Amino acid sequence: MEAPCPVDLRIDARWLVPVDPPGVLDDHALVADAGRIVAVLPTSAADVAYAPRVRVVLPTHVLIPGLVNAHTHAAMTLLRGIADDVPLRIWLEQHIWPREGRHVSPEFVHDGTLLAAAEMLKGGITCASDMYFYPDAAGHAYDSAGMRALVGMPVLDFPTPYATDADTYLAKGLAARDALKHSARLAFALAPHAPYTVGDATWERVVMYARQLDLPIHTHVAETRSEVDEARRATGETPLARLDRLGATGPSFIGVHAVHLAPEDVERLAAQRCNVVHCPVSNMKLASGIAPVAMLLARGINVALGTDGAASNNRLDLFAEMRTASLLAKVATGDAASLPAAEVLRMATLSGACALGMEAAIGSLSPGKHADAVAVDLSGIDVLPVYDPVSHLVNVAGREQVTDVWIAGERIVHGRRLATIDEPAVAARARAWQQRMN
Amino acid sequence: MEAPCPVDLRIDARWLVPVDPPGVLDDHALVADAGRIVAVLPTSAADVAYAPRVRVVLPTHVLIPGLVNAHTHAAMTLLRGIADDVPLRIWLEQHIWPREGRHVSPEFVHDGTLLAAAEMLKGGITCASDMYFYPDAAGHAYDSAGMRALVGMPVLDFPTPYATDADTYLAKGLAARDALKHSARLAFALAPHAPYTVGDATWERVVMYARQLDLPIHTHVAETRSEVDEARRATGETPLARLDRLGATGPSFIGVHAVHLAPEDVERLAAQRCNVVHCPVSNMKLASGIAPVAMLLARGINVALGTDGAASNNRLDLFAEMRTASLLAKVATGDAASLPAAEVLRMATLSGACALGMEAAIGSLSPGKHADAVAVDLSGIDVLPVYDPVSHLVNVAGREQVTDVWIAGERIVHGRRLATIDEPAVAARARAWQQRMN
Repeated sequence: MEAPCPVDLRIDARWLVPVDPPGVLDDHALVADAGRIVAVLPTSAADVAYAPRVRVVLPTHVLIPGLVNAHTHAAMTLLRGIADDVPLRIWLEQHIWPREGRHVSPEFVHDGTLLAAAEMLKGGITCASDMYFYPDAAGHAYDSAGMRALVGMPVLDFPTPYATDADTYLAKGLAARDALKHSARLAFALAPHAPYTVGDATWERVVMYARQLDLPIHTHVAETRSEVDEARRATGETPLARLDRLGATGPSFIGVHAVHLAPEDVERLAAQRCNVVHCPVSNMKLASGIAPVAMLLARGINVALGTDGAASNNRLDLFAEMRTASLLAKVATGDAASLPAAEVLRMATLSGACALGMEAAIGSLSPGKHADAVAVDLSGIDVLPVYDPVSHLVNVAGREQVTDVWIAGERIVHGRRLATIDEPAVAARARAWQQRMN
Repeated sequence: MEAPCPVDLRIDARWLVPVDPPGVLDDHALVADAGRIVAVLPTSAADVAYAPRVRVVLPTHVLIPGLVNAHTHAAMTLLRGIADDVPLRIWLEQHIWPREGRHVSPEFVHDGTLLAAAEMLKGGITCASDMYFYPDAAGHAYDSAGMRALVGMPVLDFPTPYATDADTYLAKGLAARDALKHSARLAFALAPHAPYTVGDATWERVVMYARQLDLPIHTHVAETRSEVDEARRATGETPLARLDRLGATGPSFIGVHAVHLAPEDVERLAAQRCNVVHCPVSNMKLASGIAPVAMLLARGINVALGTDGAASNNRLDLFAEMRTASLLAKVATGDAASLPAAEVLRMATLSGACALGMEAAIGSLSPGKHADAVAVDLSGIDVLPVYDPVSHLVNVAGREQVTDVWIAGERIVHGRRLATIDEPAVAARARAWQQRMN
């Protein structure tokens, strides 16, 4: 019999849900070393095989992979709740864009992103796909929070205080990527805002960079009926048909919203193995519509979940997003079996990782992947009894049940407290920005 | 100048939202004496006018009326999550009814109702309209928890372990009412289960008792498409038309769900000044459909909010219900201005009180009403910044932000801890029932 193998970390949990493979493991341990998962095995077997330097016991918790928020505008958290109960176009044109024009700066983006990271981490989100101005400031904030991010390099065909034209957007984005390439937790994507805000010539340049640098393309598409109708009137094509013609679609394409799709669009997404990010709360709040998620999944398309920005949600909360996605799919299809809990949990974890091109590294509690894990306490009087922990993760638990979060084996949230972020300081900055914003 | 008036309680809050009148009061105090609200006034004015025996200062909180859960089956909390992702008919016939037949007893109802009351109170719900077997056991549980309830006396035209026929249901319900009439916090309603489970003769008896005893009638109606279709085939009437013909409708009628309504049904509800209880999460989860809430409100019909039972929700959480109601109305109507935050908050408070016939006593922070109030802390990193506390109550805050709850001036929840319920004991009972249920 061999001596137990020394390792950095062992986490024992009442239930462990690896997501891949599906199912619930009772009384299992996750073993990690040097930031990576070494094994997932029964606690009795872990006793024999491993000698952990740190052991954490979670007797009433379910341990799940870190959640992946596949679409957000983190810095907009500073605009949380500034204009509600108005439709997308008015919301953007009368409320959001004017304020962004006046206030957005590297300092705004840094402070807003750190506020968002604090909220996301405490809610079990370990990785976010972000799209906003000043990606260098956002990247620094994620890095200092110890959170993973796919940082979007924004591209628009109109000037903002951040950049004057498409060339400048691209140059600034690529410079941010160069400046932050040392960070193991950051990756980068090209983030053209949307088909209706970026012209063909710029899309072609984006596609060229994406191919040359092997970068994902992260964009809004087919969010509202009017976007699609106007595109058809102007070009005779759906927005997705146009992006397909311009070469933007493919396995590295992250199409956000995808609410209003023609049948040919669905075939395109499937044929090109594109990724869709479903943002149910944002789509409902802005009355954009209901993405045909059950149909996209049936067609084999990878669908991840996103919160969108806190200005249109107003929580960066993937537990709420999971629950809303499941409820919305059921009522939209008339089928109560649509989007069952295990499938929604997969969307919020492994499918998110796939969308971001990170499925080899994160998204499930699988040996070889980074030890990104979230402990959810199911002992409270507001969640008992517990017949099925996977159902509870979607239908009962909220982010308030998250007690501990590890990223690459580091305990970033410890007993509901952030180890990497000075919460009072971040809260004070949020209050200061609020004063300026009014 | 007069001496300050001695009173029991003064609660100072950063924001106070009385609901009636609408709007947000900054730095106001609620003053209560002998369980009733005496005044709502600026803190500076309260300093001069009142000498409270107890003063509570909530510098980062919004104080709101106690939430009214206008429809639940509290005891079913013991079945929370036992069967998900299945439609209503299968859920009832294959999962819920067989287990109820085997397990439901006065002990089950008492333990389940106490578990539900604990969850509801900690989430800011101070009054529930309940419908379940053994209303005596439920009433005792609510009473011991210090919570208000409209206890439904269930009526069915088929036998259960609780009662064999309609006469027995009615007799047992009325006996429970007699036994509990001393409790100031309990009121009673007749609760025929639904049009499709109760025949005309029994409905007529229910209506007779309701008139004689001045009791509300609390029933499910028009929950699913198939319920309405089958009723039309069998009787040529919609379920609501039938209840109207039988004399059940009126200002004391509490119709739960009201998802599938013919235009004449809407006119009936309006003409008879009926109350509707909207249960958006349950309707979505069971794929029942979307109640036309915006249209009902536009027609002047009183619409309250309910969680339904935890077996079809699976949380007894009116914050989640408020948020879902608002989101669902927006996406269903295509109008992002539909069901704005203030209107949803009113549904969860004053409209709930109206539905239960209690609007003179509860539902708003108005002088003369019972001092039922809830403190919601808006200082956390997951809710900042706060531009509009009413929007935040619906779009950002969750029940996890509730810190303190008063009912008739008694502090039932104090710093997130229940003063009236032994939480570990209730949790242990829930676990014991779970073992039996498997």
